[in-house]
Amino acid sequence: MNLKNYIATIKNYPIAGVNFRDITPLMQNGDAFKEACDQIKNFATEAKADIIVGPESRGFIFGCPVAYEMGIGFVPVRKPGKLPRETVSFTYDLEYGSNELHIHADAIQPNQKVLIVDDLLATGGTVEATVKLIEELGGIVVGCAFLIELSDLNGRDKLVDYKVFSCMTSTEDEQ
Amino acid sequence: MNLKNYIATIKNYPIAGVNFRDITPLMQNGDAFKEACDQIKNFATEAKADIIVGPESRGFIFGCPVAYEMGIGFVPVRKPGKLPRETVSFTYDLEYGSNELHIHADAIQPNQKVLIVDDLLATGGTVEATVKLIEELGGIVVGCAFLIELSDLNGRDKLVDYKVFSCMTSTEDEQ
Repeated sequence: MNLKNYIATIKNYPIAGVNFRDITPLMQNGDAFKEACDQIKNFATEAKADIIVGPESRGFIFGCPVAYEMGIGFVPVRKPGKLPRETVSFTYDLEYGSNELHIHADAIQPNQKVLIVDDLLATGGTVEATVKLIEELGGIVVGCAFLIELSDLNGRDKLVDYKVFSCMTSTEDEQ
Repeated sequence: MNLKNYIATIKNYPIAGVNFRDITPLMQNGDAFKEACDQIKNFATEAKADIIVGPESRGFIFGCPVAYEMGIGFVPVRKPGKLPRETVSFTYDLEYGSNELHIHADAIQPNQKVLIVDDLLATGGTVEATVKLIEELGGIVVGCAFLIELSDLNGRDKLVDYKVFSCMTSTEDEQ
């Protein structure tokens, strides 16, 4: 099964010049969705993860089935105002403006082995922020898994100290 | 296992007078998260669902593991500007303002048996909008499943024609 066949590329969305990767055809197909989740689950099992962390909201889509199948917990990383108890936060720059991510302060225990799951590795800003939040709480990041990696945006350069897995690799211009 | 023990109630969040149900302690506990997903999966299997629909973003948390375990697809219902292809939408009133939900126009096939999953059944506005989107596309709603049902808010009254399952029932004032 070639999972790439289930990704739609939408030109000039959400802004001109961007090729948006639409993962909904893959999610909609039971076999493709299961295959993608199983690939990430196998990576998480080898990494001996004991908890999964996923950024809002597409990290939930692949991270929650992996946590469920492994019988371990799932921790959401969310935008401001979404987590009701005490949080730690990290702000990072975007091309225009900035983005602020939060995690509950009691979500990760010291030395817990954490695997990060998200749909897309592009420039790596979101995953780098997620790593910092986990490490601030004393967790050990044992790996980062993605459905799609856009290799020419060099997100892996921000993750040289970590194991990285992606179900598929693409380039920004690939149709 | 009493799943209620894993729900934190946060008084006066996000606004005064509201008891917010924080589901993150349940998600964080592997056994509790698996038990909740399995209860919903059993309901979905009995209902003979062949696709799961979940509203953004907490519907993803329970709906995606259920779809994964059953080997069927998952379709997201999202806020405006999040789905890149042609959508159908439905707008419903909130206490203050309104909310608009979208689904991809090709997400559901005619006569497909659809199960809706979300974290919370309160007044039922979100699930009612989701039912309308699915039926507009020709899908058959075979059930609606929730982690928590706030019984005194009477969300079930909007779902009298549908099978409804919740992992736990509470009242708005319950601590």
